[in-house]
Formats: sequence, C-alpha cells, structure tokens
Amino acid sequence: MAELIRVSAQSRSTAVAGAIAGVMREQEQTEMQAIGASAVNQAIKAVAIARGYLEQDGIDLVIAPMFTEVEIEGNERTAVRITIYRRPQSLLNSNGVYTRNGNGHVNGNSVPSLVLA
Amino acid sequence: MAELIRVSAQSRSTAVAGAIAGVMREQEQTEMQAIGASAVNQAIKAVAIARGYLEQDGIDLVIAPMFTEVEIEGNERTAVRITIYRRPQSLLNSNGVYTRNGNGHVNGNSVPSLVLA
Repeated sequence: MAELIRVSAQSRSTAVAGAIAGVMREQEQTEMQAIGASAVNQAIKAVAIARGYLEQDGIDLVIAPMFTEVEIEGNERTAVRITIYRRPQSLLNSNGVYTRNGNGHVNGNSVPSLVLA
Repeated sequence: MAELIRVSAQSRSTAVAGAIAGVMREQEQTEMQAIGASAVNQAIKAVAIARGYLEQDGIDLVIAPMFTEVEIEGNERTAVRITIYRRPQSLLNSNGVYTRNGNGHVNGNSVPSLVLA
C-alpha cells in the first residue's frame, strides 16, 4: 500500500521534501495530497527540493497530478492527489537528446531544456 | 527547442490544459513556468485536466518541477519550471502491479493508488 503524504498550506516544503526523499529511497512510488493553492504550491516546491536531495542517490522523480474528492469535517472538498514515481531511464533522452545539467555531467537530474535551449 | 507555456495566477486552468494537450499531441515534452503559489496551483490543475483531455488519444503525462531564477522587470524572482513528458509505458506497472482505473480498464490514465489501496 502506497503511503499518503498530506501537505497543508502550513507545511514546510523542506520538511515535506525530506519525507518524500525518505520514502522514495525505499519505494518505487508514493502519494501526496494537497488541498488549496498554498498547499499545492508547497507540495510542488517539495518535489523540486526532494529531486536535489535524491541526486546523490542516483534517483530522480516525476509526478502525476489528478483531482480527487475528499471529505473534510463533513464537507466535500476537491484535493489534488499527486503520485510520485522514480523517473525511469527512458525519460532521460525521450526525444533522442542526451540531457546535461549545469556542470556538464549527464545524470538523472539533468534538465532537458538546458540542452535544448 | 521546447516551447514555454507561461502560467499566471490569472490563467484559466482549462485554457492552459488545452495548450498542454495541443502541444503534447505533437511532441514528447514541453515546458511550463509559473511564479507564485496561485500560478503554480493553476499549472498543476491544468496538468490534471490535460491528462483527461489526452486520455482518448492514449497519451498520459508526467511532470518534473524544478526551481529557476528569472528576471521580471529588473527583479530576480524564483520561478517553478515544470517539464512535461509523455508518460512512458514503464511507469504503468513500475512496482509490478497492473493499474486499473475506475471502470476496471487498464490504460495510461490508470491510477495505481486505486489498485493498491
């Protein structure tokens, strides 16, 4: 069963990033949930930070967001559910271009746009 | 060169989703940029909506967020840059479990958590 990392507007993005990194060192995927713009923003920032934390482990992340309905204190709310995956090798050169990060080394954290730009 | 889809707090998420879907029907990847919590939220909601638009095309999406510094009217701002990829087949059963969506059919839009839960 995938764990659910709940993110609120008050969550520190570095703390959430630490939780993401901890889980993703052990698992292929996990789930995150955020309700409201501030919480979604914290969640996405946390993923960006976690990608940095995991770089030395040779792990990169990709995510897939979807909507889900949840009940909070008897009220129906729309939450953003974000599945986090380890980034597969096939995405590293999906368009036939090897990717490079700022220091010229190719790894799982490389940014295609830096090469393509 | 990847295109850059700029998302602001005023962007309608359905309009951004239409732009994402249009590009991703033709390309393997594209880039989106958002500055501020509201814009990031609109961008993520747009990806969730675009996944639905693309379902009938047999295309699903995954994204990778990162920070980038941009200059806006002479001021340095931190933006969230989001690379959008077509979701590779390998992610559909990355943990050895076939995924299913609500109607019992397996496709690129299936949600692992619905099976794992």
